[in-house]
Amino acid sequence: MKQPVRIAVTGAAGNISYSLLFKIAAGEMLGADQPVILQLVEIPQAMDKLRGVAMELEDCSFPLIHGITLHDNPFDGFKGVHYAMLVGARPRSKGMERADLLEANAAIFSEQGKALNEVANRDVKALVIGNPANTNCLILSRNAPDLNPSQFCAMTRLDHNRSQGILGNKLGVNPSDIDGVVVWGNHSPTMYPDLHNATVLGGESVIDQVDEDWYKTEFTPRIQKRGAEIIEWRGLSSAASAAQAGLDHMRDWALGSEGKIVSMGIISDGSYGVAKGIYYSFPCICEFGSYQIIKDLEVNEYGQAMMKKTEQELLEEKAAVDHLLPAETAESRENLKTSTDGQTQFDNGIDAASAYYKADRIC
Amino acid sequence: MKQPVRIAVTGAAGNISYSLLFKIAAGEMLGADQPVILQLVEIPQAMDKLRGVAMELEDCSFPLIHGITLHDNPFDGFKGVHYAMLVGARPRSKGMERADLLEANAAIFSEQGKALNEVANRDVKALVIGNPANTNCLILSRNAPDLNPSQFCAMTRLDHNRSQGILGNKLGVNPSDIDGVVVWGNHSPTMYPDLHNATVLGGESVIDQVDEDWYKTEFTPRIQKRGAEIIEWRGLSSAASAAQAGLDHMRDWALGSEGKIVSMGIISDGSYGVAKGIYYSFPCICEFGSYQIIKDLEVNEYGQAMMKKTEQELLEEKAAVDHLLPAETAESRENLKTSTDGQTQFDNGIDAASAYYKADRIC
Ligand SMILES: NC(=O)c1ccc[n+]([C@@H]2O[C@H](COP(=O)([O-])OP(=O)(O)OC[C@H]3O[C@@H](n4cnc5c(N)ncnc54)[C@H](O)[C@@H]3O)[C@@H](O)[C@H]2O)c1
Ligand SMILES: NC(=O)c1ccc[n+]([C@@H]2O[C@H](COP(=O)([O-])OP(=O)(O)OC[C@H]3O[C@@H](n4cnc5c(N)ncnc54)[C@H](O)[C@@H]3O)[C@@H](O)[C@H]2O)c1
Repeated sequence: MKQPVRIAVTGAAGNISYSLLFKIAAGEMLGADQPVILQLVEIPQAMDKLRGVAMELEDCSFPLIHGITLHDNPFDGFKGVHYAMLVGARPRSKGMERADLLEANAAIFSEQGKALNEVANRDVKALVIGNPANTNCLILSRNAPDLNPSQFCAMTRLDHNRSQGILGNKLGVNPSDIDGVVVWGNHSPTMYPDLHNATVLGGESVIDQVDEDWYKTEFTPRIQKRGAEIIEWRGLSSAASAAQAGLDHMRDWALGSEGKIVSMGIISDGSYGVAKGIYYSFPCICEFGSYQIIKDLEVNEYGQAMMKKTEQELLEEKAAVDHLLPAETAESRENLKTSTDGQTQFDNGIDAASAYYKADRIC
Repeated sequence: MKQPVRIAVTGAAGNISYSLLFKIAAGEMLGADQPVILQLVEIPQAMDKLRGVAMELEDCSFPLIHGITLHDNPFDGFKGVHYAMLVGARPRSKGMERADLLEANAAIFSEQGKALNEVANRDVKALVIGNPANTNCLILSRNAPDLNPSQFCAMTRLDHNRSQGILGNKLGVNPSDIDGVVVWGNHSPTMYPDLHNATVLGGESVIDQVDEDWYKTEFTPRIQKRGAEIIEWRGLSSAASAAQAGLDHMRDWALGSEGKIVSMGIISDGSYGVAKGIYYSFPCICEFGSYQIIKDLEVNEYGQAMMKKTEQELLEEKAAVDHLLPAETAESRENLKTSTDGQTQFDNGIDAASAYYKADRIC
């Protein structure tokens, strides 16, 4: 048996976690031979409910669970964790402006970033699921100067999976026979689901098989607004599919994507002309616990405009929270260089001058 | 790749199914190499919500899903199914008497029994999760005269898992190191969680390690009323843990319990002096797609009294719905003998005169 790994989950009494935890515990994320210690984090008001969830986990008599601890603050909850799934976030309440929402979440993710920085395992992999995921991730990472920005991801895998699933249905093939789907940018309705590099069954181009009009006026807005469509039918927001996407993201990151392209919201290193220093969804492959941006995909004029639009939105979100971000210090950059030395398996041509933003490497 | 199997799930838009479906689709029930076709059944009013659930399944881009169909009646929904997980049931509404509840569910499970009888695969394995599970299962099976009563089970695995999980916690061992826990009787507060044959780490007796007083006055009522305890803390009834138990039951039934004793609500063949013809939870082992009652466990006087009490309750439930049960015909018994010939791997000493109740065999 392997040594257990520590996994923190925030928002652990919420809907996504209710799907996520029982799948992690069954070995869907890290494999049936990987014991886990679950460190569940909630706000104080949700601790009773969280206890109920923990009791249900106990009731499953999962062999892989080697411990469950419950925490009402991240400084306790993140102690020694190898993985952090940050699900909890402040939802938009009635009458709340977008700026208020960003600020409310900035407070949460600043604290959690500091907590990860102080108490998490130095190789922690953190995935932000709580919305606005990309900007929350930026805030998180900037508050954790001793960790590498590439140890943080924002989840765009649900958008990726949705694209693949809906496309598979359209083409009448198994979704796993499709490769090369990319979701670029922000996890928001500005995201750009790109099929131009997608292939079916290892060869045929997808874009040749679908109508351009369908792609641009049906498929694209459907992916961008899929969350709303689910709410309309189910009466509740996506939870099980979001949990599955979180698992998929973490599993591929930890165990490899087996040569397949996956979309991950990661710190931009300037690839494809995207501004450095924002968390933007890029096409990646994962191996040996690291990810790397696929750098050589073709993006046509339409795609470039789509990519710019979602980048613009992320820059605006960043501007809205900039006054809350800690300054980057030379020291923190130095730390990074040290802490990540020798971990990457990829030749990633890191620009020493922008070490803070070295993106496509590590963890 | 194996041929896909067809799995029907009723109550597919409800809470248990929301946990169950995404685990089946990920291969937790029948393995990562077993494609599935999901045939989801709901009441007409829940079809929109069900569509939302199906969309979320699509959004996960699960390679194992080879099809999803949505049905508002079991005659369509059960066509050709190899597995049926009967989750949907009528909950007790305010002011409803127990007899009304039994009758309301009798209507549902009579229809579903007829549907399985008419359209399901002849080797179907059906698991009743919807409460009152044991008596619903009786009604189901009696309405399916062409299928063997041993193709139907009522779920007591949640009670089994709870016993194992809570005991593991008490003893400070992994729940999987415990074997021989048995839950006898009805899935209701009269159930008898029996630790007298349980061992830890393949040897030491559990009952020698726990205080008798703790066992009788703390552990037993806690297991019997665990459902209420979960509701108290979580504010909602057990769903993910019930789903996990359903998976565990089906997986062991289909793929084997690897020599471990599991509790299954099955048709009584008179073993341990339990009245024939009710669905009662017995200790079983599973192999080659069949289960067999473990017949030689010792039951002390205390245990016998506990077993009688829960048997009595099941006989009362049966009496309450007896007027709704179809008569057993000689012809249906003949069918059974033919349809199950040569399927069992066990020497089970079936009494030809009571073929309807031959229990510890097949499926
Ligand atoms: N990135 C994606 O693709 C994606 C997809 C779906 C949902 N989401 C987002 O995921 C988040 C969670 O969704 P849900 O359906 O589980 O919501 P939910 O409201 O059911 O659960 C959220 C939980 O987080 C907890 N929480 C709030 N602040 C917290 C804090 N500071 N620390 C710890 N816990 C905290 C709440 O108490 C609640 O239990 C939402 O922000 C949602 O918008 C993201
Ligand atoms: N055996 C056990 O250990 C165990 C454990 C927990 C829950 N349960 C029982 O499982 C059942 C489901 O629980 P839940 O939390 O999912 O409830 P739920 O109310 O969330 O879902 C039940 C679903 O069943 C549907 N339904 C009702 N009648 C139906 C019919 N005739 N055909 C198809 N669908 C129908 C409803 O529309 C609803 O969507 C309940 O009866 C509950 O008491 C059993």
